[in-house]
Amino acid sequence: MTKFTDLALRVTMRLAVLDPGASLTTRQVADAMAIPYNHTAKAIARLQHLGIVEARRGRGGGLELTEFGRTASIGWLVRELEGEEEVVTCEGEIPCPLRAVCSLRGALRAAQQAFYASLDPITVDQLTSSSTRPVLLSLS
Amino acid sequence: MTKFTDLALRVTMRLAVLDPGASLTTRQVADAMAIPYNHTAKAIARLQHLGIVEARRGRGGGLELTEFGRTASIGWLVRELEGEEEVVTCEGEIPCPLRAVCSLRGALRAAQQAFYASLDPITVDQLTSSSTRPVLLSLS
Repeated sequence: MTKFTDLALRVTMRLAVLDPGASLTTRQVADAMAIPYNHTAKAIARLQHLGIVEARRGRGGGLELTEFGRTASIGWLVRELEGEEEVVTCEGEIPCPLRAVCSLRGALRAAQQAFYASLDPITVDQLTSSSTRPVLLSLS
Repeated sequence: MTKFTDLALRVTMRLAVLDPGASLTTRQVADAMAIPYNHTAKAIARLQHLGIVEARRGRGGGLELTEFGRTASIGWLVRELEGEEEVVTCEGEIPCPLRAVCSLRGALRAAQQAFYASLDPITVDQLTSSSTRPVLLSLS
């Protein structure tokens, strides 16, 4: 999994435990999750585009999870964040000579789908409702 | 999946289609699979250690797959090559503040196991007995 997906999931988890009406700035999320500011900003932009995070403007504004974001599937979210990335780089600078007919490539695609399928039934809310919640709330 | 695992699997596949008694040098495997020589040598050393590849010495010697190597499970092989690597880096230079109680970490471990489990029933022989075989044989 890419570093970017990892960070975007951490950001999502921090925002998921906010009380209703509460919000955080990008800086606050970055500091809480020990992620560089620039990476946090990029992750938030992507999560906004996916409809997971919204930014309320003006006084008292800030970042919060959308209603959709709370119930979103982790499997769906990871698929979106990872894009069409394959498990291995068949089409690299020096392409693999087997790429057109490779049985391994198909097997790895199926394994990747099994990976996502395992995450499909888990929602953002579920991921942050257990023992992880108090720790998330304590970070600042 | 690491680049190293990818290359080791390619090496395994090339050796898997050798006729009985035939063998290849490290250089021949590297050239056939478009992998740098040093990487190929490292992958072969690891595969020898795992009992997948053996090197016959002397005249007419060279690299070939062991009997165990032909029937080895791809899931097992990928697990061995990947080691204890997690899907995300919870314990990095800047460790994730959630690492001790993270529900995501557990969910990703389960997803990783689902990935491996999908590859468990596939053997090296199966992977190289389909349309991939003639292409592997044509590479030199």
